[in-house]
Amino acid sequence: MTSNKFDKVEALVFDVFGTVVDWRGSIIRQGKAFSQRRGIEIDWPTMADRWRAGYRPTMDKIARGEIPWTRFHDFNRELLEQLVGEFGIRGLRNKDLVELNDFWRRLDPWPDVVRGLKRLKKRFVIGTLSNGDIRTMVDIARHAGLPWDVVFSSENFQRFKPEAEVYLGAARLLGVRPDRLALVAAHKNDLRAARANGLRTAFVERPKEHGTTKRTDAGPERYIDLLAPDFNQLADQLGL
Amino acid sequence: MTSNKFDKVEALVFDVFGTVVDWRGSIIRQGKAFSQRRGIEIDWPTMADRWRAGYRPTMDKIARGEIPWTRFHDFNRELLEQLVGEFGIRGLRNKDLVELNDFWRRLDPWPDVVRGLKRLKKRFVIGTLSNGDIRTMVDIARHAGLPWDVVFSSENFQRFKPEAEVYLGAARLLGVRPDRLALVAAHKNDLRAARANGLRTAFVERPKEHGTTKRTDAGPERYIDLLAPDFNQLADQLGL
Repeated sequence: MTSNKFDKVEALVFDVFGTVVDWRGSIIRQGKAFSQRRGIEIDWPTMADRWRAGYRPTMDKIARGEIPWTRFHDFNRELLEQLVGEFGIRGLRNKDLVELNDFWRRLDPWPDVVRGLKRLKKRFVIGTLSNGDIRTMVDIARHAGLPWDVVFSSENFQRFKPEAEVYLGAARLLGVRPDRLALVAAHKNDLRAARANGLRTAFVERPKEHGTTKRTDAGPERYIDLLAPDFNQLADQLGL
Repeated sequence: MTSNKFDKVEALVFDVFGTVVDWRGSIIRQGKAFSQRRGIEIDWPTMADRWRAGYRPTMDKIARGEIPWTRFHDFNRELLEQLVGEFGIRGLRNKDLVELNDFWRRLDPWPDVVRGLKRLKKRFVIGTLSNGDIRTMVDIARHAGLPWDVVFSSENFQRFKPEAEVYLGAARLLGVRPDRLALVAAHKNDLRAARANGLRTAFVERPKEHGTTKRTDAGPERYIDLLAPDFNQLADQLGL
């Protein structure tokens, strides 16, 4: 594995949910603390998985024009309300629903992330490229101490990944050709779409994203330039 | 002067050229070093002033639809080429013009800025709201060590300040009502437009922006909530 495909890369953009932050572990931790404090029992691992599972179908409906553009934070609140009904959870006031929905703005990074990003930032412009909204990205960065140079989101383009405009839009807003921009992600479909639009790609393995129940495929692909177990080993491969 | 009008403010956005960075001093310093190294004599104070003077008329032409949307970095290059012609400067190759145009991506902050921003960031989300383009903002922040949470630019909206959409767009992308967002600027027309669109406002005095030849009016106005001599004294007034 050499890094010569990255020689002319000026900027790295990162998928966030799963790649940078442990959304599942963070929702479960915050949820258990909430349940204990309020005496309201909720199956948080199941809640986290089901909440996340509503994300893609909602974005697909927006992409097909079945529902109007809605930012992540707002449709995530609707998903929460549906789940509260389905789970038959009683005793939650509006204030509680606000608090629960804000869990997604206080997600914790994987252990290698802060140091790895600081190393990568020495050579590259670093930014987010998330389907989450801008304010969610800003609040996570403040919570977790993530040293982004710039925050890009589906909200900038009113399109969700893997639509082409998101990848091309990030390159355009950074003033670079697509092949001078790389996407770092733990999800192969995201990297496949990035490459289809001319970006360079780096896969980072996050085997614990879905807990212990779901296996991830960390093998090489023709559309992946670099594979690394974490951000620090990515920095190592890039000679930083 | 009390800060109660800022009690519910969640985010501060900053004008950049003049308010955060000393564009004139930075262009002159870089220009003089370039001239000395290359043996090409240029009147850099006049060049800096004339270059900057082309900025507003160009943005006005774009706003009126006389020329298509162009980002700052690109129309600034055209302005540079015009000035090189008008000044009769000889011996500049394309590589030199690239270097000169990039001066605007390496502007130095006023002395109070880095510490002041770090203090303000403790309580507020902080970001740019500049007519400069996103990459220029990113490069200045990396050069100067500016700890922005987020970078907003005319480029996000394809509109220049003082058009309403820039101020309202920043509030929308941060997910806040306009009165929970404040603009910090050294230019009264910018603050007047921000207030007309419902934002809170803070004026910071930058008497040296135009060198010693031009006086600035630092008096209070009905559309200005806070006035401060610099970012640290703004942080003082806000109890940070």
